[in-house]
Amino acid sequence: MSNTSIHFTKGHGTGNDFVLIDDAEAALDITPGYVQWLADRHLGIGGDGIIRIVRSRALDDPAAARAAADGAEWFMDYSNADGSVAEMCGNGVRVFAHYLYAHGLATTETLRVGTRDGVKIVRRVDIAYPGDDADWFSVDMGTWTISDEAGRHDGTDSLVRVSGLEVPRPALTVDMGNPHAVVALAELSELSELDLYHAPSVDPVPSDGINVEFIVPGQLDEEHGSVTMRVHERGVGETQSCGTGACAAALAARLWAGSGAPDVWRVDVPGGTLQVRVDGERVHLAGPAELVADGTVAFR
Amino acid sequence: MSNTSIHFTKGHGTGNDFVLIDDAEAALDITPGYVQWLADRHLGIGGDGIIRIVRSRALDDPAAARAAADGAEWFMDYSNADGSVAEMCGNGVRVFAHYLYAHGLATTETLRVGTRDGVKIVRRVDIAYPGDDADWFSVDMGTWTISDEAGRHDGTDSLVRVSGLEVPRPALTVDMGNPHAVVALAELSELSELDLYHAPSVDPVPSDGINVEFIVPGQLDEEHGSVTMRVHERGVGETQSCGTGACAAALAARLWAGSGAPDVWRVDVPGGTLQVRVDGERVHLAGPAELVADGTVAFR
Repeated sequence: MSNTSIHFTKGHGTGNDFVLIDDAEAALDITPGYVQWLADRHLGIGGDGIIRIVRSRALDDPAAARAAADGAEWFMDYSNADGSVAEMCGNGVRVFAHYLYAHGLATTETLRVGTRDGVKIVRRVDIAYPGDDADWFSVDMGTWTISDEAGRHDGTDSLVRVSGLEVPRPALTVDMGNPHAVVALAELSELSELDLYHAPSVDPVPSDGINVEFIVPGQLDEEHGSVTMRVHERGVGETQSCGTGACAAALAARLWAGSGAPDVWRVDVPGGTLQVRVDGERVHLAGPAELVADGTVAFR
Repeated sequence: MSNTSIHFTKGHGTGNDFVLIDDAEAALDITPGYVQWLADRHLGIGGDGIIRIVRSRALDDPAAARAAADGAEWFMDYSNADGSVAEMCGNGVRVFAHYLYAHGLATTETLRVGTRDGVKIVRRVDIAYPGDDADWFSVDMGTWTISDEAGRHDGTDSLVRVSGLEVPRPALTVDMGNPHAVVALAELSELSELDLYHAPSVDPVPSDGINVEFIVPGQLDEEHGSVTMRVHERGVGETQSCGTGACAAALAARLWAGSGAPDVWRVDVPGGTLQVRVDGERVHLAGPAELVADGTVAFR
C-alpha cells in the first residue's frame, strides 16, 4: 500500500455496486485515472461506479452550486467505472442516502440529494419483499417520455435483434432522461436463454446508443403488476440491475396492460428486486441499499 | 452491515485477485456460502479466490498437519470463488507471502508456506520489469510433465478450436499438477482478436477439462525468452493471469525453441508481467504481489 490512504465504503443496490469515498469538504483531487483504478475489479476494489460524497457548497461545480441553492446539503458526485462523469444513478442514489443515514449525516425522513441531473428526493420506505431484510429507500425519478407513435399502433416503435432469439422482436422506446428499448417476451425460459454478452441491435439505430430491457410481464393482483427483467446497458454490457431500466420496463408493461393497469410494479432483476410506482406523471423507484464493507485504500 | 464483522485485505498478483482473511487461530467458521458471497464482485467484495491465513497447527486439516510437521508455520487455506477448496494458486501464494511480511508475521528471507499441494518455498526477489514498482516474490512451483509423444513429432499432441481462429491449431499439453494446453500463434494481432468468452474446445477431449493458453513466443536475448499470453481457465473463463498457465506457456515455448533455449522467460499476461525460470527439473514463478485495500466486512 502506498503512503497515503483514504477511507472507502463498498455498497450496492440490487447488485449495482459502488465504491463510496467520503470527501465532505472536496479536499481530494480524484482523477479519472484513480476512478478507473478504484473501479477495476481485479487491480483495485471494483465497482460499477465511484460515488464521491461531498457537501454541495464545497464542490466547485455549477450543478453542486445549484443543488446547494435548492436545499440539498449533500451532492452525489458520480463517476462511471471508465472515469467519465455521470449525471445520475437510480440505484446509486439509494446507497448514497443509506450512507448518509448510517453515518448520522442525514436525519430527516425526506432527503434532498444533489446530482448533475438536479436535486432528487429520497425517502426511507418500509417495503421489503420476502427474503429481503435490507433497508429500502425510494427515489422520485421524475417524468418520462414515450413516443406518440407507440400509442397509435401496437405499443411498439422499433425492432430488436439479439443472440438467442431467432426473429427480431418489437420494442417500445422509453425516455427516462436516458434512452431505453423495452422488449416483452412470453416465457421466463426465453429470457434466461438470451445471450446478452453481445449487444442487441436496435432498428431504427439510435444515434447515441440505447439500453435494452427484455422483460416477462405479469400481474400479481389488481393493484400490483410484475416484471422479470434482464438488461443490456449501452457501453457496459449486461448488468445486475439498472434503475432507469426498471422504471422503463414497468412503464412499458403498464402501457401494454392498457387502461386500469396497476400503478405499482415489482421488478425482478438479476441482482434482486425493485419496486416501481407511478404517481401521476412521475415515477418512483424503491429498492434495497446495502453497505457491505469499509476500510482504507491507497490514494494516488 | 451486520452486527459481527471481520477484518479483510484485498490483494492481487498480476490481476489475479483475492480477499484475504486473517484467521491465525482458525477461530472462524467460514462456510462455502460465505466464500461465495465474499467473492461476489457485485454483492460482496469480489475476488477470484478467498485466502484464509491460518497457522498450520491450528487448522484441523490433514494437509495443514503435514505442513506443520514440514516446518511451515503458516497455511494458505485457499477457496475458489464458487466456494470449493483449491489445492494451490501460484499468484495467490505470493500475495499470501506479501501479507505475512507486511504484517511482521514472516521475517526470514525464505518462507515455507503450507498448501494442500504441499509446502511451497517462497522468496522475496529483486526483480521488477520497467514500470513495475511492486514487491516481487518467487515461488518454487515444482516439477512438470510433458507427454513423451510431443517430443517425437512436431512438439504438439492435440488440437484446439477457438472462436476468432478459423482453423484448429496444434497444442502441447503440459501438466503442472493441473492440465494445460498451450497454443502458439504467430502474431499479437491474432492473439488480441481471440474470443475467449466461449471456452476453446480441445481434441482429444480432456476428461477433467483443461486450461488453454494462447501465446506469442519471442526471444529477448540469448538468456531470456519471452511469451505474450492469454488464458482461458477451465470452469472460470478468461482471466487476467494464471500462475501455472504462465509456467506451462514458458515450458512449451522453451521446448519449441529447441536445444540452447533460454531458461528464463518473461511472460506478459493481461494483468501484468511474470517471470518463469527453469532450474533443472523444477520451475520457479516470480511476479508482483500487491495489497490494495483493507478494512472490515460483515461476517455471517
